[in-house]
Amino acid sequence: MIVLVVNCGSSSLKYQLVNMDNEEVMAKGLVEKIGLPDSQLTHKWNGQKKVVQQSIPDHQVAVKLVLDSLTDAGCGVIKTMDAIDAVGHRVVHGGEEFACSTLINDEVMAALEKCSAYAPLHNPPNIIGINACKAIIPNVPQVGVFDTAFHQTMPPKAFMYGLPYELYKEDGIRRYGFHGTSHRYVAGQVAKVMGVPVEKLRIINCHLGNGSSLAAIKYGKCIDTTMGFTPLAGVLMGTRCGDIDPAIVTSVMEKHGLSTKEMDALMNKKSGVLGISGVSSDFRDLGDAASKGNERAQLALDMFHYQVRKLIGALAAAMEGVDVITFTAGVGENGIDDRAAICQGLEYLGAKLDAERNDVRGKDTLISTDDSTVKMYVIPTDEEIMIARDTKELVSK
Amino acid sequence: MIVLVVNCGSSSLKYQLVNMDNEEVMAKGLVEKIGLPDSQLTHKWNGQKKVVQQSIPDHQVAVKLVLDSLTDAGCGVIKTMDAIDAVGHRVVHGGEEFACSTLINDEVMAALEKCSAYAPLHNPPNIIGINACKAIIPNVPQVGVFDTAFHQTMPPKAFMYGLPYELYKEDGIRRYGFHGTSHRYVAGQVAKVMGVPVEKLRIINCHLGNGSSLAAIKYGKCIDTTMGFTPLAGVLMGTRCGDIDPAIVTSVMEKHGLSTKEMDALMNKKSGVLGISGVSSDFRDLGDAASKGNERAQLALDMFHYQVRKLIGALAAAMEGVDVITFTAGVGENGIDDRAAICQGLEYLGAKLDAERNDVRGKDTLISTDDSTVKMYVIPTDEEIMIARDTKELVSK
Repeated sequence: MIVLVVNCGSSSLKYQLVNMDNEEVMAKGLVEKIGLPDSQLTHKWNGQKKVVQQSIPDHQVAVKLVLDSLTDAGCGVIKTMDAIDAVGHRVVHGGEEFACSTLINDEVMAALEKCSAYAPLHNPPNIIGINACKAIIPNVPQVGVFDTAFHQTMPPKAFMYGLPYELYKEDGIRRYGFHGTSHRYVAGQVAKVMGVPVEKLRIINCHLGNGSSLAAIKYGKCIDTTMGFTPLAGVLMGTRCGDIDPAIVTSVMEKHGLSTKEMDALMNKKSGVLGISGVSSDFRDLGDAASKGNERAQLALDMFHYQVRKLIGALAAAMEGVDVITFTAGVGENGIDDRAAICQGLEYLGAKLDAERNDVRGKDTLISTDDSTVKMYVIPTDEEIMIARDTKELVSK
Repeated sequence: MIVLVVNCGSSSLKYQLVNMDNEEVMAKGLVEKIGLPDSQLTHKWNGQKKVVQQSIPDHQVAVKLVLDSLTDAGCGVIKTMDAIDAVGHRVVHGGEEFACSTLINDEVMAALEKCSAYAPLHNPPNIIGINACKAIIPNVPQVGVFDTAFHQTMPPKAFMYGLPYELYKEDGIRRYGFHGTSHRYVAGQVAKVMGVPVEKLRIINCHLGNGSSLAAIKYGKCIDTTMGFTPLAGVLMGTRCGDIDPAIVTSVMEKHGLSTKEMDALMNKKSGVLGISGVSSDFRDLGDAASKGNERAQLALDMFHYQVRKLIGALAAAMEGVDVITFTAGVGENGIDDRAAICQGLEYLGAKLDAERNDVRGKDTLISTDDSTVKMYVIPTDEEIMIARDTKELVSK
């Protein structure tokens, strides 16, 4: 079975074509700046790369271009579109409607539209992507895989906020959590690497990238996570502030005469390690600046490491202990110094980092010492393969 | 030396007269509803109580009434006002200006006025109380003891928020922390009870009352706390929401057309366990309702216990381990079931509650088992004695 994995952003479309007989990635690529003057497609296959610069006014044209490339005599990997058995779409927000992936039909589309209220920046492009595929390959089954779904097992004491109950019942204000597909992949993968059933492990997965979240996965089920109603909450991120005293929001709005939209922009785009350092939202840039003596860059890194460590502590308490700590995504997979800084001082939990083993990037690796009672691993995430697997499973039923 | 301790709220004045030769409380009392029609003074001395109902239009009249009661032929405990050697005032917010208690002079008053910007509801009545005392007993030295001062030892990685750096530099937006006098008292007291210098202990103090905060006190110094820029942050409280995704603030304001003031009121007055349960902000009422099957009351309690447990986990990570966990304030001292629920699942830290020892209210008591590597104690707080001690020390210099 051949599955096309599609991840649509507001002006981008990422894709992978996966042969699910062996989980081999046949081709993958990215359409950028859809609707903008310098839109382009970057297509990769068989170790080769092709860049197509042309006008891509909307997502439907982008989907068409992707399908053309996949079936192209030169850069293609399949003969015709008919070779595609199913399409799996990443969808950011599934609200309380979707606790697992689902075959898309009209009813599902209506529920997705409803969930857009919770993720006004993310869900609409996801829906546009689904509609574009439906228009071009109407007979191919499509599946939605939700960032929020894995977190739907959280108990009320973890997902409720200390706000008037009506805000939950009427407005759906609760913790949803994000990066769920990544957290689910890593939990399964580390269990596989360890040779232990995931149902026997209490895992804290640290998905640390430009956006970051941690999840407490107890015996295979997510019981808590650090992102919340939106992906703004938790640890400070590239440009997002993470958890702050909520009174700061109204205080800054009042003092600076900001509207809710302006305040949202400040917290989402101008904050995080960028806001602290004034240097960059990229952790590599921060490391460079800090090593040259930039104190605010060092502060931003210190805050990030400290906050992640505290959240590991909080989630360990949530699970009444922890067996495994995993690191994934850009910073989690590649940030050797970041991992070392985060783990410094976790010895009280029985988690001891092995400095030599930790000198690794981007591959499944044990990084704790042999006598560490809490095992620590680097596990590169792979959301696409999870989307492809779910898609295969649902379509095969 | 005789010290008068004064704690002024917007319409109340609490006082204690303490003989600092033996730390004996000679008299204490409360003036309520200052400026309201049914204002009254409740004065207690020698196991007796007297209630005076009369018009108390402002804090100066309240201070005069207190001094009259203290020197009264019937209910008094001193002959004249001259017997009062010093007055110690509780002041909520000392900003970054005050890292310890201070003798009040004109310069200090100016700094206090400046700090009012951070605590517009709390500091102005504190200042009114100081001015009232100055007017009536101008020659008695006065001391300010700040709720925030103990937390000024927090490092930047703990007190900074992931917001644009300018908001800290220009607007003073940072974590200040509150209940500092209580946290300081409990840390000192538990060290005394244990017979171990506070400089050798890592203490997590859980000040749990109508307002709640936890502090991480490492070797005598506060290194982190759960309240923040304001006392709204941290665990959900009686009517305060505690930590929430900051995007909820703007989302609720937009959806319901709330002003910043209305949103502040919602988060401060209509949230917390009251907002969740719809029953009460009082933990005893919640316990009663939950035992009768009220699910939302049970949820509010579950959330409170779970959030406190997670914060204990986070602060343990912040200190790279914990030696002692203390419980204080209304719920901390008296909530036997609350302490049991919070500690359930902390065994991974080496903290084991002894159910029999935990059956205690309001006195210094070890409540962990003998084999618990983390010691747990109930320590009733006493902010007044700390204010009196600081006052004595500063005045004696």
